[in-house]
Amino acid sequence: MAAALALSERGRGRTAPNPNVGCLIVREGVVVGRGWTQPGGRPHAEAMALAEAGAAARGATVFVTLEPCAHVSPRGPACADLLAAAGPARVVAALTDPDPRTAGAGFARLRAAGIGVTIGIGADQAARTMAGFLQRRYQGRAEVTLKLATSLDGCIALASGESRWITGAEARAHAHLERTRAEAICIGGGTLRADAPRLDVRLPGLEARAPRRLLLARTPADLPAGWTWVESPRAAAALAGVDHLLVEGGAGAAAAFLAEDLVDRLLLYRAPLLIGAGRAALGGIGLAGLDAAHGRWRLLDARGLGVDRLELYERRR
Amino acid sequence: MAAALALSERGRGRTAPNPNVGCLIVREGVVVGRGWTQPGGRPHAEAMALAEAGAAARGATVFVTLEPCAHVSPRGPACADLLAAAGPARVVAALTDPDPRTAGAGFARLRAAGIGVTIGIGADQAARTMAGFLQRRYQGRAEVTLKLATSLDGCIALASGESRWITGAEARAHAHLERTRAEAICIGGGTLRADAPRLDVRLPGLEARAPRRLLLARTPADLPAGWTWVESPRAAAALAGVDHLLVEGGAGAAAAFLAEDLVDRLLLYRAPLLIGAGRAALGGIGLAGLDAAHGRWRLLDARGLGVDRLELYERRR
Ligand SMILES: NC(=O)c1ccc[n+]([C@@H]2O[C@H](COP(=O)([O-])OP(=O)(O)OC[C@H]3O[C@@H](n4cnc5c(N)ncnc54)[C@H](OP(=O)(O)O)[C@@H]3O)[C@@H](O)[C@H]2O)c1
Ligand SMILES: NC(=O)c1ccc[n+]([C@@H]2O[C@H](COP(=O)([O-])OP(=O)(O)OC[C@H]3O[C@@H](n4cnc5c(N)ncnc54)[C@H](OP(=O)(O)O)[C@@H]3O)[C@@H](O)[C@H]2O)c1
Repeated sequence: MAAALALSERGRGRTAPNPNVGCLIVREGVVVGRGWTQPGGRPHAEAMALAEAGAAARGATVFVTLEPCAHVSPRGPACADLLAAAGPARVVAALTDPDPRTAGAGFARLRAAGIGVTIGIGADQAARTMAGFLQRRYQGRAEVTLKLATSLDGCIALASGESRWITGAEARAHAHLERTRAEAICIGGGTLRADAPRLDVRLPGLEARAPRRLLLARTPADLPAGWTWVESPRAAAALAGVDHLLVEGGAGAAAAFLAEDLVDRLLLYRAPLLIGAGRAALGGIGLAGLDAAHGRWRLLDARGLGVDRLELYERRR
Repeated sequence: MAAALALSERGRGRTAPNPNVGCLIVREGVVVGRGWTQPGGRPHAEAMALAEAGAAARGATVFVTLEPCAHVSPRGPACADLLAAAGPARVVAALTDPDPRTAGAGFARLRAAGIGVTIGIGADQAARTMAGFLQRRYQGRAEVTLKLATSLDGCIALASGESRWITGAEARAHAHLERTRAEAICIGGGTLRADAPRLDVRLPGLEARAPRRLLLARTPADLPAGWTWVESPRAAAALAGVDHLLVEGGAGAAAAFLAEDLVDRLLLYRAPLLIGAGRAALGGIGLAGLDAAHGRWRLLDARGLGVDRLELYERRR
């Protein structure tokens, strides 16, 4: 399942409104098929993995991060039917599909075809990997990641406004890779005025993967060509076709998303330097007292990126 | 040598004006003696280890973090003479003693007694472990550690001043342990007025290890009984008998030490919470631009303490 989850990560930010599913087919200890939801949502991961496995799928074990779909669409057959026809011995799935057209019907069809079904393996990690799709289905909004690049004392710029560069090349490359995993990036009007950032993806071979650009501002007066105006954090998170939203600051925009408790992931890049009396990473987030601040964030990952460090936190809900 | 360095750590903050030396005697793969400089500076590490080893020291290998002293004092004989009499086959030392009464004379006396001498093993780590003593000798000031306890966005308090508690019990216990490794703690007048901290050591069995308390303020008007007034960061670092100084904030005092480039170690305790528009960890440190901020700090340690994280940085010089 870990391998299937890694495959599922490949589609992150490119499959909306479909889930980014990963699928691995193993027969007698040998991987015979691998698939992940393709850009735009089709083909599905199972269809891709079954095509690769061919006849070897018969009697094999299929690992899939989400319940195979039970509904036929104009763009392709139901994966549950494809699997029933291919005849694996067992399907191991992480999560049930919240889509009402499937929601258990996929598993039922597999069982009816005599295929063993195991559910729930790797469920926590699958919920993280496909959080954009799941949040859209369950809460009607995107998964929101807030990116901050700060000094050790939590500044995102000097008092003069100088902020290029706090973090080094490795951290900035990682941040660009994160952009490819979102359908849209949002910045506040202040950052547009201060930095006029391009928000593109400057990584060789990935230039075409730049997501939509959103401007959070009270009016659309300064909107650059090709950008989308959003009047509130909630409006940004509700945009159709955006299951993964990356908020890249500045302090006012970041605080606005946090104040509405819309941030699910916090990507913290920290450079080993001190600024002192600089610009704080966050404006007011409406915190009443320290008690309310505790217990909200869980560290998922910490690592070095050149001389900088990256920490990934998730909102505990 | 790693074991000798660990022994040397035991004396940190308790041996001034003597160095906190560690010594290990190994014979045929068996540890026969261990010693570390005792509180107040005597007995020396070598004397303690030789007393434990007894006759087993003959033909053994002695690991010691600093050159054995060559000078007789009213408080005890020279360690080089003790070693010459004990007759080990070899002495492995990390560093040469900067004390002009020894400075190579200790090694010469060992060689004259037919003992093999190896110098420089573990020198970098020994320089860290005995940095208080070495800085005092070479720069005439204490090794200064700055402690900061912040939120992920670099705040040391809410805008209201509320700062108890940002970090949890484990981090606070660790910070109290750090107090036992310093001869003095310094805070600024603002923290005294805001929090009136006791600056004691609230760890079972270590209560008696509380260091001297220093108040950094422009005038001694508010000096609590038993505290020492210091009128500048430089004066604090120059105090006799203080080889290790711990600066515990607040933002103004921390910035004052940084602005004079007097901070050698940065102890950063970080709680997994966001404050937003709170009190910044640092006041102005006189930074002209980002270029000047880079390359000054090196990460030595990063670890979890309960839900919090500790990072230790050292100033690169
Ligand atoms: N190191 C980093 O990671 C990083 C990243 C980004 C930016 N920065 C720095 O951050 C600074 C800019 O920060 P900032 O706080 O001034 O600007 P900002 O957060 O980029 O923008 C603030 C603006 O966002 C809009 N806004 C905020 N909340 C809103 C809400 N609830 N509804 C509608 N609009 C809302 C308003 O735009 P309008 O005024 O247009 O209405 C507001 O003035 C710059 O110095 C930049 O270099 C650093
Ligand atoms: N989370 C933490 O780790 C932590 C730790 C400590 C404090 N805090 C918080 O920090 C806040 C206090 O910070 P703060 O910046 O207001 O106060 P502060 O740094 O404790 O004290 C500032 C004062 O230090 C003195 N001072 C500073 N530089 C000096 C210099 N170069 N020469 C002589 N005196 C100098 C002055 O004292 P006089 O005005 O008396 O002359 C100045 O007003 C409080 O809210 C406290 O709770 C948090």
